[in-house]
Amino acid sequence: MTRPHQPPLTYAAAGVDIDAADRALARVKTLARATFTPGVLSEIGSFGGLFTLRPDDPQAEVLVASADGVGTKLRVAQMAGIHHTVGEDLVNHCVNDILVQGARPLFFLDYLAAGRLVPEVIVALVEGVARGCAANGCALLGGETAEMPGLYAEDEYDVAGFIVGAVRRDRLLPRADVAAGDALVGLPSSGLHTNGYSLARKVFFELLALTVDSHVPDLGHTVAEELLAVHRSYLRPVQPLMEAGLVKAAAHITGGGIPDNLPRVLPAGLGAEIYPHSWVEPPVFGLIRAVGRVPEEDMRRTFNLGVGMILLVGEERLGELLAALPGDCPGRVIGRVAASPGVRFLGGGRDS
Amino acid sequence: MTRPHQPPLTYAAAGVDIDAADRALARVKTLARATFTPGVLSEIGSFGGLFTLRPDDPQAEVLVASADGVGTKLRVAQMAGIHHTVGEDLVNHCVNDILVQGARPLFFLDYLAAGRLVPEVIVALVEGVARGCAANGCALLGGETAEMPGLYAEDEYDVAGFIVGAVRRDRLLPRADVAAGDALVGLPSSGLHTNGYSLARKVFFELLALTVDSHVPDLGHTVAEELLAVHRSYLRPVQPLMEAGLVKAAAHITGGGIPDNLPRVLPAGLGAEIYPHSWVEPPVFGLIRAVGRVPEEDMRRTFNLGVGMILLVGEERLGELLAALPGDCPGRVIGRVAASPGVRFLGGGRDS
Repeated sequence: MTRPHQPPLTYAAAGVDIDAADRALARVKTLARATFTPGVLSEIGSFGGLFTLRPDDPQAEVLVASADGVGTKLRVAQMAGIHHTVGEDLVNHCVNDILVQGARPLFFLDYLAAGRLVPEVIVALVEGVARGCAANGCALLGGETAEMPGLYAEDEYDVAGFIVGAVRRDRLLPRADVAAGDALVGLPSSGLHTNGYSLARKVFFELLALTVDSHVPDLGHTVAEELLAVHRSYLRPVQPLMEAGLVKAAAHITGGGIPDNLPRVLPAGLGAEIYPHSWVEPPVFGLIRAVGRVPEEDMRRTFNLGVGMILLVGEERLGELLAALPGDCPGRVIGRVAASPGVRFLGGGRDS
Repeated sequence: MTRPHQPPLTYAAAGVDIDAADRALARVKTLARATFTPGVLSEIGSFGGLFTLRPDDPQAEVLVASADGVGTKLRVAQMAGIHHTVGEDLVNHCVNDILVQGARPLFFLDYLAAGRLVPEVIVALVEGVARGCAANGCALLGGETAEMPGLYAEDEYDVAGFIVGAVRRDRLLPRADVAAGDALVGLPSSGLHTNGYSLARKVFFELLALTVDSHVPDLGHTVAEELLAVHRSYLRPVQPLMEAGLVKAAAHITGGGIPDNLPRVLPAGLGAEIYPHSWVEPPVFGLIRAVGRVPEEDMRRTFNLGVGMILLVGEERLGELLAALPGDCPGRVIGRVAASPGVRFLGGGRDS
């Protein structure tokens, strides 16, 4: 179904310039660091920012905060007229971002801006947000709803979420004992989660010229069903493992994929080996790879490829951790922490 | 300079349907309330949401959180190519929203979404955010920067801010002793702050057909200088008064003006009388009123009209409070708390 002479799709070709973003983010980090007060315990760039009201107390509860959007998955929601799932995506994305620092969610606020406030759309969105909050034991504490004619088109909107959680300072992740040889346990994603939608939209709506309602036999359901699958929350399966001290560190696999997200929780000097054939990749990724002729490197930096979260666990507790994961969220060893920096995929890509 | 047969501008005519928003917000409140956990101390609709980690401790520090945007003031920033002031607006708006509950800011996160990430624009925006954070003693703890081609036009972006502050639970505002007869002390705004821009843009860019660079003799500067004046933070002048116990309650005058914002801090059954001739209205509001032929009721529900914050103070401490305000933020009695509900403007409007 691909066009005969269509060039391979890369994230840059799909309109996202990752390097330009990186340059700006480096400067942004410097600007932010200059505002840090004694309560700040984190560097900009961790999954969540860390703040304590009692900098001198090593056992104080630390607040962990994160802000997120759902990217251009919103466009799919708007095309399909289905608005509640992205509300849930927003919450779960935020919950996962602070979970990987060991935190339980406390409260959530949303920001919703639209060209025109259509009550049914707002309510559907917030229903999703509230459902996500309730499922994660997180209070929906407030939010801002803004009608911005002229900035957004009438039927368009954007949403952002903001979460605050807490963890005792001495239980913060990543722990200091992450070491070469530790197992990387991958947890299954529910689909694209909230990343790679600029590229996925090009594949489904431009190259394949499908609509949101098109049934895709290879996927077993419609484009909307695939692309709007809710970003999974790992709180329920993972929190008990963290409380039991089984997890040394965890990485939420979002934009940038494993290569960009896993190193965020590795100590300086360490890296990782990934076994890409160790897990079963959901069919949507193979379809995107084939139709878009997307180079493997771009696939890996754009999508979760079926692994939504990675837990780092010492070999001696690996069996215990795998056994403790519930049946609906099975873990699988997808690699190891390595003694030298960098993330290396062993055994070739799916297209090799 | 008005068109001869131009109909009066109202906020609804400018494209903002306040009633539709109100209906959706009522349902949203119900949905949010269902997620409340024992830590939640506030109702949805207060300026900031309140959360405590220790619900049983009456002296515990309470977290106060708020989310905000800067509305279509962003369009003016984008037209003028000036991006740092809206960053500062965003912080100050959030700081004021939690200040009126008695809280000092702890940390801030931003969400920035653009059609294309232009490094210079991102950096300018965050420079403004960082400047605002530093001026308010608030850490810029993190944020999300998203490139969303297809959702935003190339040169357009939206920003949202999230703030968390803290206040000892027994120092929360509004206090329970707000009573009929208390003075309403108005503090000067620096211009439109971040509200009423849909209407203001119609007046300046459609009815008057000006550009951002047009010099407006009545204002003494350009349209951009007027419309991008930074939303003032009241933290420095007001926090010492709160610490001294002089302030019973405070209202941040944002969208909805005095009629919508002042009642948010009044006990059930009480209202207010406002003396609209008691303060000097900045010329920009008179210009908008005249050119747009905006009914006084719409002016009052749309703009701060020169009063950016209202402090409620008992008569016995009024002199002390007025004397304690710094020279660059003088207070003025603009009304009184009344014994019956509703906000009444005495003495007619500016156009009467």
